[in-house]
Amino acid sequence: MISATFVAGISIALFGLSLASAQQDQVALHGIKPLPNERYVMVTFLSGIEFWVPARKGMEHAAKQLGVQASYQGTEKYDAIDEARVLDQVIASQPTGILVTAQNPEALRPTIDKAVDAGISVVMFDSDSPKSKRPVFLAGDNYRIGQKAGELMARLLNNKKGAKLEVVTTIGQLNMTQRSSGFEEAVEKHGMTVVRTVEEGGGYDATYARTKEVLQAAPDLDGIFDCGSMAPGASKAVQEAGKIGTIKIIGMDLDNALMDLIEKGQVAATLVQGAWHMGYWGLWMSYAVAHGMVDAGIPDFKQAGASPLPAYVDTGVYEVTKENLKFFRNINKP
Amino acid sequence: MISATFVAGISIALFGLSLASAQQDQVALHGIKPLPNERYVMVTFLSGIEFWVPARKGMEHAAKQLGVQASYQGTEKYDAIDEARVLDQVIASQPTGILVTAQNPEALRPTIDKAVDAGISVVMFDSDSPKSKRPVFLAGDNYRIGQKAGELMARLLNNKKGAKLEVVTTIGQLNMTQRSSGFEEAVEKHGMTVVRTVEEGGGYDATYARTKEVLQAAPDLDGIFDCGSMAPGASKAVQEAGKIGTIKIIGMDLDNALMDLIEKGQVAATLVQGAWHMGYWGLWMSYAVAHGMVDAGIPDFKQAGASPLPAYVDTGVYEVTKENLKFFRNINKP
Repeated sequence: MISATFVAGISIALFGLSLASAQQDQVALHGIKPLPNERYVMVTFLSGIEFWVPARKGMEHAAKQLGVQASYQGTEKYDAIDEARVLDQVIASQPTGILVTAQNPEALRPTIDKAVDAGISVVMFDSDSPKSKRPVFLAGDNYRIGQKAGELMARLLNNKKGAKLEVVTTIGQLNMTQRSSGFEEAVEKHGMTVVRTVEEGGGYDATYARTKEVLQAAPDLDGIFDCGSMAPGASKAVQEAGKIGTIKIIGMDLDNALMDLIEKGQVAATLVQGAWHMGYWGLWMSYAVAHGMVDAGIPDFKQAGASPLPAYVDTGVYEVTKENLKFFRNINKP
Repeated sequence: MISATFVAGISIALFGLSLASAQQDQVALHGIKPLPNERYVMVTFLSGIEFWVPARKGMEHAAKQLGVQASYQGTEKYDAIDEARVLDQVIASQPTGILVTAQNPEALRPTIDKAVDAGISVVMFDSDSPKSKRPVFLAGDNYRIGQKAGELMARLLNNKKGAKLEVVTTIGQLNMTQRSSGFEEAVEKHGMTVVRTVEEGGGYDATYARTKEVLQAAPDLDGIFDCGSMAPGASKAVQEAGKIGTIKIIGMDLDNALMDLIEKGQVAATLVQGAWHMGYWGLWMSYAVAHGMVDAGIPDFKQAGASPLPAYVDTGVYEVTKENLKFFRNINKP
């Protein structure tokens, strides 16, 4: 028969070893309990587009660190009712938290509020529903994105006074309007002028046709900022006019078509949003609320009308040119 | 002699029990190693003011959850050189991270960059040094604070068309200018007008004297928004004119003097910043960078020119009136 002390001694020694080994690659979060069946779901519209990939990867990165499950659900269509239906299904599955972006702020609002009222820890990213009950919104600041594009344009044109610029935008769409306003304000400070603002028109062909018209009306154009994703359309018109390199083009976001054009020098630069941070910090914030980790320093924060989270996180934007493109090649790969 | 299997069986069972017990009040962060002598320091100017207390409490709350040390250092004076000196001493002590607010953006910039270059995980809060190398800034959005004050004023005055308002501000100080602009924009949407903008003048007495003049020139005034901390001065003038209740006063932040005036109904409301979130998420973000937990989804994010953190966190603002004041009573208590 062995003595209890002897066994305890061995087990403590082994336990000590196990802890030491565990501590090499993990730290503890104190005062926080794991939740049963802990699970977070990201919900988007237009689930097929590459834009969501970094957001999803950011969420999965945080989920791995926290040891929780995270999954992704989206609706293929750009349709508010369809998105509300998917969000409803996700709510019915009773996840711990939801990270959601709204195709339409008002159409999705009742379903978002339903999720909050059901005790699900909701955060919003990319496209907000500001009047809903979500505590926080994580996204790029479109006005600042426009300003950054304007500063970049000034550098690309070596601060050429009197430079003439075209803006490609979608009039009436808030994020686009904010980007073009920020751009215009920034270039005006450098003595440059937006001489033409054209409608993107929802496809490369429309942007191509309208930029072609602009180039005929203003052959001395110096630069183009496409607030949306149609810079390849503008690039085609500039190429046909034999003005590649003379006319600097700045796009938004980064897909394969744009990567190729930047590589070839046909598009000077693009602005890539910090979508990864939306997913990463979105999950952290959802987790923090679900676990009661945050109270704004006010124990009765709900009754007080205080929020357990910051109001807004500006997830930033990066300039991508031929020089640093290689680092961004895999950003949209799942 | 006992068999190895037997001991292993017991030790695994005991280890399992220990883990289960530990799991009741802590969770693990996976893939993250503790750092030797891990320590975070908050550095401010005007260390005596109550405003920093919630920020400090937020930092300490996060530090407790993460099991790291956090301390506070400040300079008593409102002096940039003095703050740079204190920050230099903190850098020399080689902390893991620093949470710093700048009395002057340019004067503190070289010292902030020195900290970043020394490998210290720096984040900034409340007052930024935007051209420094800090990756993130956490603070209230002063323009939105002003808008919120304007919306609140409209509600307090029951949307009275043609209402006449006074703004007390410090002309030339960026945060104040942003607050008064946001306020003016919001009230104009409700058909109200800012008829007088006066200098706060750095004390209750100056604000009292100037508001007294305004009340003589515009006896039909409906409301006052003090963008700074001198609402008690404005309140005294309104009281002497026998207009308490008729003229609605909105202040900023919350100290004992303002608490008393709100309690007595002499000041209608104040806007309290989410300073707790500056400290709480500031520490989390500093910790995340120090531990290599975040890379923006781009392995070579430094060479790419991408940031490991969001660009900006808007820490929000809360409306405090007589109705919910009791919940905020202890917000500035250490």
